[in-house]
Amino acid sequence: MAIPREAMSPDPVSWADWSAERQRRIEDVLARVLPAAELEPEHLSRAMRYAVLDGGKRMRPLLAYASAELTGADPDAVDAPAAAVELIHAYSLIHDDLPCMDDDTLRRGKPTCHVAFGEAMALLAGDALQALAFSVLAEDVHEDHGSEACALLADAAGMRGMAGGQAIDLVSVGVALPVTKLETMHRMKTGALIRAAVRLGAGRGRALEPAEARALDRYADAAGLAFQVVDDVLDVEGSAASLGKTAGKDVAQGKPTFVSCLGLAAAKARAEALRIEAKNALAPFGAAGRRLAELADWIVLRVH
Amino acid sequence: MAIPREAMSPDPVSWADWSAERQRRIEDVLARVLPAAELEPEHLSRAMRYAVLDGGKRMRPLLAYASAELTGADPDAVDAPAAAVELIHAYSLIHDDLPCMDDDTLRRGKPTCHVAFGEAMALLAGDALQALAFSVLAEDVHEDHGSEACALLADAAGMRGMAGGQAIDLVSVGVALPVTKLETMHRMKTGALIRAAVRLGAGRGRALEPAEARALDRYADAAGLAFQVVDDVLDVEGSAASLGKTAGKDVAQGKPTFVSCLGLAAAKARAEALRIEAKNALAPFGAAGRRLAELADWIVLRVH
Repeated sequence: MAIPREAMSPDPVSWADWSAERQRRIEDVLARVLPAAELEPEHLSRAMRYAVLDGGKRMRPLLAYASAELTGADPDAVDAPAAAVELIHAYSLIHDDLPCMDDDTLRRGKPTCHVAFGEAMALLAGDALQALAFSVLAEDVHEDHGSEACALLADAAGMRGMAGGQAIDLVSVGVALPVTKLETMHRMKTGALIRAAVRLGAGRGRALEPAEARALDRYADAAGLAFQVVDDVLDVEGSAASLGKTAGKDVAQGKPTFVSCLGLAAAKARAEALRIEAKNALAPFGAAGRRLAELADWIVLRVH
Repeated sequence: MAIPREAMSPDPVSWADWSAERQRRIEDVLARVLPAAELEPEHLSRAMRYAVLDGGKRMRPLLAYASAELTGADPDAVDAPAAAVELIHAYSLIHDDLPCMDDDTLRRGKPTCHVAFGEAMALLAGDALQALAFSVLAEDVHEDHGSEACALLADAAGMRGMAGGQAIDLVSVGVALPVTKLETMHRMKTGALIRAAVRLGAGRGRALEPAEARALDRYADAAGLAFQVVDDVLDVEGSAASLGKTAGKDVAQGKPTFVSCLGLAAAKARAEALRIEAKNALAPFGAAGRRLAELADWIVLRVH
């Protein structure tokens, strides 16, 4: 694959180097927008930093930066939306891990936030991270249309998106969902924020034609669903050491997954089909879609 | 007081009628911006509506509408910020009442959200209400500067405001705080959102001179603190029947309050002094400050 890709694009930077650079970049941005560790109230500042920094694949920020490559946006202009989507994601993990939700003790290779800081402080850290995401986006000096970005993020995070998907997840424990219902749940629970990351990143560059915007949404939809299918496969095949979180917990909790719905082999085939679908959706963009195509590969071929 | 007030302002509508009309108005707005009860995921929609509708004094929306009178804003333009601050407030009550926080079972005269819908769904309802607040503000057609409004709300809700104040509250249980520290905590925990309500409401009308904006902030600061002092007094003197929430719980939980810091008589005197301070701050506005002045009276002289 290396030769055709390089023929398409003059950028000699490999995916490994490009993604590592963007991961370092978002780490710096997040460290800067989070409250300093010693800022009062100190417990809250520390809990927020603990839950966000030093961990995570940063898939959503990478999606934002990769989409920005597609529309020729300056990475500087993408820092705020990339950070905002990661802050929303991080808050959702804190709340998801609470005893009243998944009751999990391990996340990103560390004790979960409530194990480290107590339930009440973890709850508040999640709440404050959601507010911070909107602060970062609304105060972004690179964007004249900050309210549109806030509206997009709020929709993705709220009841029509992430929170709604989690609510469906919650009432689906022990229920044999048809795969279409499972897909709807994941389109809300993780897909909506992934689509927001892609749209917000792309939105910082040249305006897209309506057909291009639809193609990009198709990419986000396929990549987001692929991410979830792979997650379900890894939950069965992976170990806590490689995942950095408790393995096998979906099965243990009786949650419907793509593996429980389709079987392991068919789930793997579905992930592969979604990877192709995501990359095919990028056809209209030619070489400019390179990073997003590489990201689709990375999402599906990852081992944690 | 009725004669001088009417001499100042041609508006013959009494405070009782004006505030009742605005309370009805915000109830309609909230019912409209909340997801329909039957919207999927239904449990979440119902939990959100349950926690927001049919209850509450609507003090924050009233502050927004009263501030709008000050700058001559059309009430239509204030519906979105008035709803947004109330949604933030409602979400904070849900999370505050959770077992890992105050563990309360009665709110606004009804079982708390987690008693009615379970902890996990209540947690998600709070999360989704925070997102909805930003949606409402960011999508407001009456405002060209939606991102400034979102930034203001996010700051008030986040770690430098409400969530930060709650974190201080959390680590202050059983601690004898000096009254200045207690005031700092309440300026963040409730004061920041009250100031946001006042600023957002006023922001929908004519632009304020810097001195006027400072005067309005002084009003909000005094009124917000007065509200909290009165709350602490009522926690001691009120009954669950009149308050619609558990009485005496601050004392039972060992939380520092204005009553525990100052004693009951001094706390009452402090509330009265803050009421005067709030009304004095309105002097530059003349008759246009009438509703805010009446609101300061209402905050301090209320019995629940």
